[in-house]
Amino acid sequence: MDFALFFTFLAACGAAAATGAMFQPGDWYKGLSKPWWTPKDWMFPVAWTILYICIAVAAMRVAMQAGFDPLVGQGLALWAVQIALNTLWTPVFFGLRRIRAGLVVLGLLWLAVAATLLVFWRIDPLAGWLFAPYLLWVTIAGALNASVWLRNPGVAAG
Amino acid sequence: MDFALFFTFLAACGAAAATGAMFQPGDWYKGLSKPWWTPKDWMFPVAWTILYICIAVAAMRVAMQAGFDPLVGQGLALWAVQIALNTLWTPVFFGLRRIRAGLVVLGLLWLAVAATLLVFWRIDPLAGWLFAPYLLWVTIAGALNASVWLRNPGVAAG
Repeated sequence: MDFALFFTFLAACGAAAATGAMFQPGDWYKGLSKPWWTPKDWMFPVAWTILYICIAVAAMRVAMQAGFDPLVGQGLALWAVQIALNTLWTPVFFGLRRIRAGLVVLGLLWLAVAATLLVFWRIDPLAGWLFAPYLLWVTIAGALNASVWLRNPGVAAG
Repeated sequence: MDFALFFTFLAACGAAAATGAMFQPGDWYKGLSKPWWTPKDWMFPVAWTILYICIAVAAMRVAMQAGFDPLVGQGLALWAVQIALNTLWTPVFFGLRRIRAGLVVLGLLWLAVAATLLVFWRIDPLAGWLFAPYLLWVTIAGALNASVWLRNPGVAAG
């Protein structure tokens, strides 16, 4: 455990999490047609809290291998991509209400998360595993975003 | 030059840059009272393009030291923090029009950029130098955000 590394990565997650607090779903989201398997509202902050801790621990474990493994550079570069895309999605979807642009961001996020998982896995298998719930959740979020796009043709302007 | 690393870091910058394209200043920003030294509108995308390339090159150089220098982990962790905060600022300021919250984000961004510069400097002095224009620009942006906050007490609701 390296607390300096852990809290630095957690701070990056904090910036992404702040979007969830500042760009609220509100009545607009409530009014959208959503599929039956849409997670309940309370599940989102709970899931994200767990996921952010998992990916901060994963990044900390990988960063601790700097000095030993040259692949750490690529792994942490990909981690930076996913946290930036993660920060971008909420303002695009809930702020601009651009459902289609949100889907594009989520597609790129899915690719970045999958790539991070693979590189992390090669450096430290446990760090790779710690990314698995995140990839699963982004898959669900992507399916939900796609479903909302298809079910609400009238509002899917962006 | 490691193109895979460079383009991965540039992709993270791309997520941050996308906010500039999607959350436009518009009439609201035009109508705000701003100080005489406010940079012209065209300067912002030009400055950010140069800065994003500089910080992607800096991160690439640092990431290339993974395998040799254990400090690379902390340096890239801080780089991830600054790119997430960078992605956050535009939607908060231009999207939500929360001037005060934007100032808080910029303050945290300034700290993250300064910390990244210092750690990068210790790993690779040129990478530290490549962060200097960014720190200068965030200082100017922070002063502008603070000035806009003080000059527009009526709109400074958030």
